[in-house]
Amino acid sequence: MSGYTPGEQMNSPDVVKLNTNENPYAPSPRVFEAVADALNGQSLRKYPQPLGDTFRQAAGRVLNVDPDSILVGNGSDDILTILTRAFVPEGGRVAFPTPSYVLYKSLADIQGATSQTVPFTRDWTPPSPWPVRGAHLTYFANPNSPSGTILRREAIAQLAEQVGGPFVLDEAYAEFAEDNGLSLIGQLPDFVITRTFSKFYALAGLRFGMAIAEPKLIRELAKVKDSYNCDVLALAAATATIEDQEYYSDIRSRILATRGRMAVALTELGFAVTPSQTNFLWCRHPERPLKPIYEALKTKKILVRYMNYPDSGDGLRITVGSPKDIERLLTELAVILKQ
Amino acid sequence: MSGYTPGEQMNSPDVVKLNTNENPYAPSPRVFEAVADALNGQSLRKYPQPLGDTFRQAAGRVLNVDPDSILVGNGSDDILTILTRAFVPEGGRVAFPTPSYVLYKSLADIQGATSQTVPFTRDWTPPSPWPVRGAHLTYFANPNSPSGTILRREAIAQLAEQVGGPFVLDEAYAEFAEDNGLSLIGQLPDFVITRTFSKFYALAGLRFGMAIAEPKLIRELAKVKDSYNCDVLALAAATATIEDQEYYSDIRSRILATRGRMAVALTELGFAVTPSQTNFLWCRHPERPLKPIYEALKTKKILVRYMNYPDSGDGLRITVGSPKDIERLLTELAVILKQ
Repeated sequence: MSGYTPGEQMNSPDVVKLNTNENPYAPSPRVFEAVADALNGQSLRKYPQPLGDTFRQAAGRVLNVDPDSILVGNGSDDILTILTRAFVPEGGRVAFPTPSYVLYKSLADIQGATSQTVPFTRDWTPPSPWPVRGAHLTYFANPNSPSGTILRREAIAQLAEQVGGPFVLDEAYAEFAEDNGLSLIGQLPDFVITRTFSKFYALAGLRFGMAIAEPKLIRELAKVKDSYNCDVLALAAATATIEDQEYYSDIRSRILATRGRMAVALTELGFAVTPSQTNFLWCRHPERPLKPIYEALKTKKILVRYMNYPDSGDGLRITVGSPKDIERLLTELAVILKQ
Repeated sequence: MSGYTPGEQMNSPDVVKLNTNENPYAPSPRVFEAVADALNGQSLRKYPQPLGDTFRQAAGRVLNVDPDSILVGNGSDDILTILTRAFVPEGGRVAFPTPSYVLYKSLADIQGATSQTVPFTRDWTPPSPWPVRGAHLTYFANPNSPSGTILRREAIAQLAEQVGGPFVLDEAYAEFAEDNGLSLIGQLPDFVITRTFSKFYALAGLRFGMAIAEPKLIRELAKVKDSYNCDVLALAAATATIEDQEYYSDIRSRILATRGRMAVALTELGFAVTPSQTNFLWCRHPERPLKPIYEALKTKKILVRYMNYPDSGDGLRITVGSPKDIERLLTELAVILKQ
């Protein structure tokens, strides 16, 4: 088994890092206050809240859901791991579309389960009817990575009904998108939404994510997680984060504005850019091979993600970074493409 | 499946909490500096080091082991989960002595494995020869909880050889003890030591633990963990912690001194106190039932752990708290026992 290989983490400050969809902006100032408040001997030496109840109350208010419908996780990878362990027996079957988040296959491999992949159609929709019946778990990233595309909630509801079994709607990028599946909670059995604080909320370094599902399902999932899977500083940060929607609304506007300009500029450079509902762009090029472009950018200390899928070919997934970083990317790309 | 039930977390400040073996002292002042340094927009918005290399270098120096022999974990529960998933198939068998850490059975249940428990002898040693052959994984807590007793490294080496398969030496309390198994790394195949920062290092709130084993085994275990299982603040705190052995040496002396006085006082109150190599005491009473004592303490807002094992009866596991908290405990116990 090879395990999941995360995106490269060249962290020297002069590297333009557009490969793991981190937020170019800092988290809310309230996060720093909340962590500083929680940073004391009493809170460090004692175990944290096992279920993160303070966070759940806050998130319940902001998202208008029952706090008991929320499970806290050490990143959404922890949540996806918990879901896989809860639903999938060894020798079981999981299903997911492809190309999508490559972690799904790693999770299945670790669990000793078989992965059944379903190719997206050319317009990044799943085939209808969905061809895999009886999977122990179906993962569906929406918006999807690497494409950045979404299905609307009505289409998600239809898909989940066709799947007819446990369904994970992985909404890692939902806060950048025009629609999400939150209103479907309670409408469909064994339907779980996962969210991360690593992308929109700019807390990749702090590891926080959550699942949202019916409370009776959350209670069962809680038995599978480590008792204290989220630490006291991450819980404090996540609570302050979700309560500061005003700050993040401003960040959203800035990132979407950069995304728009970036898509236009990349198109002018000859790329075929898939319209995105996320903080990244999926770029192909009808005339130029992509791997040399990725490698040339890397020599210029600009990291993007080169992805090559056996069934659908390759592309560059480029994070919407700060305006300055994107300017540098576009300048270098123009030089590379002239060669 | 019932899942693991962690110790009660009544966190109001007037509660004397002697039930989850937290350290009564704050972590090193260097921890606060290190977290404050790491608390900036750049480190929060970016993913942390996947393998915690800065910590591994520091811990390698302090423990005099190869940094590549260290796996970082989100608490030692995360490490124990990773080990279970790596070694134990569904329908597999795990073995461990009893009474011991009750999480082992929960981990086996989640994995769909069978638990084979081996009763300790009356002097808290394992039966020799060890009676379970062919387990996929054997857990052995050393020092053990709830007893606080240890086996010396020579006895551990003999036991691991008799077990003849993957062996986890769970050293959650090793820093309080007179001996540990670190020198056995590399001497025995599939031999893993786990450590936590929740007890001796006073970082229960921050979730940090580690595995120590041969580098080739650590590389395999790393494939099973979540890619970014430790956050940037916990990694910074853990690094500062392990580098400040002087501070913790002082804490050790204070806790061991309190433990000594506490054992004498509890014995004078009529308890049978098992000699401890940890930061807690296992107490029975030849004349008085223990559950009413636990309950009477709870009404006085003093939490200890009442444990009742089907094969070996019940007892109170009492954390070595601050001198002030232990004084309050002893005062209340004297009153309760007079009734």
